[in-house]
Amino acid sequence: MTRRGEVRVAMIGTRFMGKAHSNAWTQVAHFHGRPLKPVLQVLCGRDRAHAETLAERWGWQHVETDWRRVLERDDVDVVDICTPNNLHAEPAIAALKAGKHVLCEKPLARNVKECLPMVRAAAAAKGQLNFVCFNYRRVPALALARKLVLEERLGRIYHVRCVYLNSGAMNPDAPLRWRMQADLAGSGPNGDLNAHIVDAARFVSGLEIAEVAAAAETFIKERPIAGQPGRKGKVTVEDAILMLARFSNGALGSFEASRFGRGWRNKNAIEINGEKGALRFEFEDMNRLKYFDATAPNRLQGWTDILVTEPDHPYAGAYWPPGHVIGYEHTFINICADVLEALGQGPRAIAALQPNFADACQVQRVLDAALKAARSRRWERTGC
Amino acid sequence: MTRRGEVRVAMIGTRFMGKAHSNAWTQVAHFHGRPLKPVLQVLCGRDRAHAETLAERWGWQHVETDWRRVLERDDVDVVDICTPNNLHAEPAIAALKAGKHVLCEKPLARNVKECLPMVRAAAAAKGQLNFVCFNYRRVPALALARKLVLEERLGRIYHVRCVYLNSGAMNPDAPLRWRMQADLAGSGPNGDLNAHIVDAARFVSGLEIAEVAAAAETFIKERPIAGQPGRKGKVTVEDAILMLARFSNGALGSFEASRFGRGWRNKNAIEINGEKGALRFEFEDMNRLKYFDATAPNRLQGWTDILVTEPDHPYAGAYWPPGHVIGYEHTFINICADVLEALGQGPRAIAALQPNFADACQVQRVLDAALKAARSRRWERTGC
Amino acid sequence: MTRRGEVRVAMIGTRFMGKAHSNAWTQVAHFHGRPLKPVLQVLCGRDRAHAETLAERWGWQHVETDWRRVLERDDVDVVDICTPNNLHAEPAIAALKAGKHVLCEKPLARNVKECLPMVRAAAAAKGQLNFVCFNYRRVPALALARKLVLEERLGRIYHVRCVYLNSGAMNPDAPLRWRMQADLAGSGPNGDLNAHIVDAARFVSGLEIAEVAAAAETFIKERPIAGQPGRKGKVTVEDAILMLARFSNGALGSFEASRFGRGWRNKNAIEINGEKGALRFEFEDMNRLKYFDATAPNRLQGWTDILVTEPDHPYAGAYWPPGHVIGYEHTFINICADVLEALGQGPRAIAALQPNFADACQVQRVLDAALKAARSRRWERTGC
Amino acid sequence: MTRRGEVRVAMIGTRFMGKAHSNAWTQVAHFHGRPLKPVLQVLCGRDRAHAETLAERWGWQHVETDWRRVLERDDVDVVDICTPNNLHAEPAIAALKAGKHVLCEKPLARNVKECLPMVRAAAAAKGQLNFVCFNYRRVPALALARKLVLEERLGRIYHVRCVYLNSGAMNPDAPLRWRMQADLAGSGPNGDLNAHIVDAARFVSGLEIAEVAAAAETFIKERPIAGQPGRKGKVTVEDAILMLARFSNGALGSFEASRFGRGWRNKNAIEINGEKGALRFEFEDMNRLKYFDATAPNRLQGWTDILVTEPDHPYAGAYWPPGHVIGYEHTFINICADVLEALGQGPRAIAALQPNFADACQVQRVLDAALKAARSRRWERTGC
Repeated sequence: MTRRGEVRVAMIGTRFMGKAHSNAWTQVAHFHGRPLKPVLQVLCGRDRAHAETLAERWGWQHVETDWRRVLERDDVDVVDICTPNNLHAEPAIAALKAGKHVLCEKPLARNVKECLPMVRAAAAAKGQLNFVCFNYRRVPALALARKLVLEERLGRIYHVRCVYLNSGAMNPDAPLRWRMQADLAGSGPNGDLNAHIVDAARFVSGLEIAEVAAAAETFIKERPIAGQPGRKGKVTVEDAILMLARFSNGALGSFEASRFGRGWRNKNAIEINGEKGALRFEFEDMNRLKYFDATAPNRLQGWTDILVTEPDHPYAGAYWPPGHVIGYEHTFINICADVLEALGQGPRAIAALQPNFADACQVQRVLDAALKAARSRRWERTGC
Repeated sequence: MTRRGEVRVAMIGTRFMGKAHSNAWTQVAHFHGRPLKPVLQVLCGRDRAHAETLAERWGWQHVETDWRRVLERDDVDVVDICTPNNLHAEPAIAALKAGKHVLCEKPLARNVKECLPMVRAAAAAKGQLNFVCFNYRRVPALALARKLVLEERLGRIYHVRCVYLNSGAMNPDAPLRWRMQADLAGSGPNGDLNAHIVDAARFVSGLEIAEVAAAAETFIKERPIAGQPGRKGKVTVEDAILMLARFSNGALGSFEASRFGRGWRNKNAIEINGEKGALRFEFEDMNRLKYFDATAPNRLQGWTDILVTEPDHPYAGAYWPPGHVIGYEHTFINICADVLEALGQGPRAIAALQPNFADACQVQRVLDAALKAARSRRWERTGC
Repeated sequence: MTRRGEVRVAMIGTRFMGKAHSNAWTQVAHFHGRPLKPVLQVLCGRDRAHAETLAERWGWQHVETDWRRVLERDDVDVVDICTPNNLHAEPAIAALKAGKHVLCEKPLARNVKECLPMVRAAAAAKGQLNFVCFNYRRVPALALARKLVLEERLGRIYHVRCVYLNSGAMNPDAPLRWRMQADLAGSGPNGDLNAHIVDAARFVSGLEIAEVAAAAETFIKERPIAGQPGRKGKVTVEDAILMLARFSNGALGSFEASRFGRGWRNKNAIEINGEKGALRFEFEDMNRLKYFDATAPNRLQGWTDILVTEPDHPYAGAYWPPGHVIGYEHTFINICADVLEALGQGPRAIAALQPNFADACQVQRVLDAALKAARSRRWERTGC
Repeated sequence: MTRRGEVRVAMIGTRFMGKAHSNAWTQVAHFHGRPLKPVLQVLCGRDRAHAETLAERWGWQHVETDWRRVLERDDVDVVDICTPNNLHAEPAIAALKAGKHVLCEKPLARNVKECLPMVRAAAAAKGQLNFVCFNYRRVPALALARKLVLEERLGRIYHVRCVYLNSGAMNPDAPLRWRMQADLAGSGPNGDLNAHIVDAARFVSGLEIAEVAAAAETFIKERPIAGQPGRKGKVTVEDAILMLARFSNGALGSFEASRFGRGWRNKNAIEINGEKGALRFEFEDMNRLKYFDATAPNRLQGWTDILVTEPDHPYAGAYWPPGHVIGYEHTFINICADVLEALGQGPRAIAALQPNFADACQVQRVLDAALKAARSRRWERTGC
């Protein structure tokens, strides 16, 4: 499908994720030696002027305003979906049907019902990639954490503890955004933040969440409508969601996702306590992984603060010498590197690349169960 | 009741808390200027030899082996109950009836049912003290946290997040202890650890917990019986309990208490996120309080790490110069200082001293609701 | 000098700094809105094959192997010197004479003697930029630190304390590099690491260093020569240098630069203690600045951990939302943004941009005095 | 010398150290099982009223106002000297001559000249203890650090880095104290703070300091005289002293002791970088030792944060369960435990107990060399 060692990318969406992905497609070939190079072929956004500005800035060669037009183009190999959550399913399914490789931002969709046809479309596709951009899996420290678990360094896992806190909704005067409207976003921090930590928990531990109990709350019920002075609109998603979880192996988990986490800007944190060891990570210190080795001599045990910038750490060798830290944007560059690697290697690698739609649907099952449990006031099975 | 500026104390119980309280009664007059001085009058333990060793070491003047005998003595003003949880209610009620001041270790009893007569006995008492030793309230940093909340520095509280993790039950070869037997302890980490953080949450926030959902698990079902090689006994309490909470003001809370918290020895931690500020504390760094002031200029906002050793910090002035940190044992010394202060001031101060039996019963309501919710698999009201 | 809103850059040097600068010139227009855009016009490296590989990867349009040829080109506006220290002076002076804007990597040269003609050439130039890439000045946290000092938040400064530690020379089997040879590098960690912290100390405090005492040591005297099995070459620079400093205002400073700093990969740290406040920074946690405000109420004083990712923090707004951290490479992007800004604004801004050659020569005076003091075993004046 | 398993202690001095030692002699038998028990026999202070108050509070049985009278008493086995620095030598020598065991607070005296007769008196004594209370050696974390060095876990030591910072002299309105007068204190932070870190460096590393360069400064030259409104007296000691050191093995050291360390209350910190590992400690977090094991697999290397409260950690088992931290005062209790242990074991143990007068004289040689170097403006040999 690709031409002369190139992969032609069309990106749909032009806001925060549009910037992050533009940067990633730009930077991947600079840092990662991959046989395939991405071409920033088409940028698609409904606001043409804004899209053209972004395209100009990042070097996208063409601009479209209708995503359907993008899929008709035969100069596009990969479709990268960065739109709000309500605009994931339809273009993703259509793109797969059109024979394109697909990357989709998280959460996969607004709910499981919307995810299922996406998963089916992915299964029916003829060898194209279906990938979901849970970017935190590509933080070197979390990728290392996953490795340590695979090496059996934790033994049986007893606890998984995650929070994702920011202060994004604490200002009552900030206007209503799409992320606060259920029809567009599906949910609030559940899909926005909890999705990330549920995915991280599954990724690092290798365990599925079997059942959940939950509490959700909308602390501020109405918000100003941008551009309409004096008018307010209803907030139709939760401001915070907390979740208890029982994992497939009997481990107990705790998850908290809130936009009212005073003191934190982007505290995406996970801790896992196991029989033989434990791990901790916080995104605001993303270059560090804390590891507790309970098999070390008792008097030397403690949390080891690993600066994950060594050549033998995942992804780190592509960037700078040890101690020369990387940032948020590099998680997306690492995604692109893995995507290009898989596309270059062919069908088996493409099929194996994770997280894919089926994977992300498992996350969505947990998120849906959480909202259901918050309403039913009892434990609910996730179906995972 | 007291004689010549002295308060004669009888302590029942000779193990971990017996040591902590012996030390506190010994040290309080050295550090805190109080009009009343404690006399270590009677130590009561069923194992006379052991009790005599402890009495010798700490200077208890008399030893008894039957707590009922202690209450008959007219040379005792205060009874300090440090026994396992199943031996709180009866001696506490009897002591109050005998006209003694009573201090009781936490949790108040094994369950609410057992607590209620204690609360009634306290209410019926003729001006004696009824006090429960939630010692963490007297950590200077937590006492400062409470003050900052009272000064309205947090504004509306949205989240309370507590964990109490140790690794105390992770060794499967360690013998069954009384803390693992429901008839003696009432519960496992629920009464042992969750009690502390529920109390801390209530103390610092000033809020009550209205309802809870929970999960409990016993990871290791059987343990060796000490002194009976090859025989095992059933663990009849949980190894870990997790709890979601909705507070009286609508705030959402998360609590986790586990003896399987690999990586932690005594991680008693609390965080509160409010409209105007936030607070964090971890006991392993007990001389520090982290405070986030969201009313500061945005570019200077951050977590301020307050070393709580200044003369104008609660309790700290009694000890050492700034920066010369104190430890776990000082929380008990501070309790004794407050108790002596109240006894010296008279009825009003005695009645006002917190936490008392009624207070601790509120904690127990939450703990009972948590166990009930873990079984019922639905949210349960606490009755607080 | 620039054409149609473009600035045509020629970079000399293709190794570590070549990569960092290639990235910065590539990325600056993506993140920072500046009227001028850089064109990656010429890459110059002695090893043509290597230079062509780098040029291909980063999009340099032309390759040269002789820097003199670069200066003759009239399609070059800016010359960016990323060569080893012995190759700074000659091309920089020639470039200025050729009417080019010049950026030069730090240290400015191998010693003051070599710097002086560079400073004179800069003074004699007709309005071109002369800039030295002390990149850490453009860490948002250090730029914020500078602002806080300018706002008089520290009051009189008493102490400046800097270390720059890595483990870069601890492996005795690693081959001799140019950084270990005096004729190429001028010095070891003195020019490599101490230069950075001396500059940071001057930048943040606004003070000059008047005199120094020092100790230097070469722990491993000989190293294998790459490609010549069994042969060893002499290490002709120090492995570590420590320096005491007296500042212009009487403050006392401590500096330590070592390649034998076991435990650290890139610990570039500074602390300043003043009458009214204090500041701390460590590069491995580069998104954070610690600020102690001694004018706050005593019981609330402590180190505030500022996550320097807010829109109102220096440089931060150009990148990602709050809490979405940046990395090492962004310091160079910030340099390019400031350079383009100055070039766009014209002579006054160009003349004002810091640090320039004269500035870097002040650093070199300190470095030379340090080596002199290490040899003379007495305090030496820097002449600053 | 001791009677019926008792050691009768006379303490000279009633201020800060008087309180710390009173507590230690009181507490040692409570926590540490030792065959000998201390008796708080005599407290000696020039201000009888103050001494009697302290004696009353801590249970000293007798009060004296003239230290010579103390030495004449035959009911005293140990003399514990807690007076200002100018009152160490004479009573220490006299006490040894009187056949008493002697403990002396640090620094041993005001200078080496004053120390030498003390060392001679100790050598001439007939088996009595001569001990100097460098209490930080008995922080469990530093005792563990020493053990790790003895186990060869650091390999060759390259760097030792110490600071001792407080803010004790930053208020210009605070009155002149004895610690600011050279005739009483000998020096300022040199004897007060630098003594501690020089001792800690020697203790942990096992190395001696061969030569030093230094800078000293008195930032505030005059201070109010207490009780004499409007009058000021001259500060005759330094406010801060910085020192570079070359150790016996060629390692380079950095020491900084300041009473102008804004942001710090009691930051007594040490770091050692060695070939195979590294160690870090800060007193404000005294229950923690950071250890970097460079022999671990590269990708798992990092600073391990050891909470030094395990039963197999030095001294820790005597107190509370793991994670139940101790404080400043316990360092003195540990001293008393070691002293009683040695006295109980007899001559060999008494002779071996460290640090003794000779040991402390080595510290003093370094301190004197530092002041000399600060004046001479050149490196000075310590004579160690």
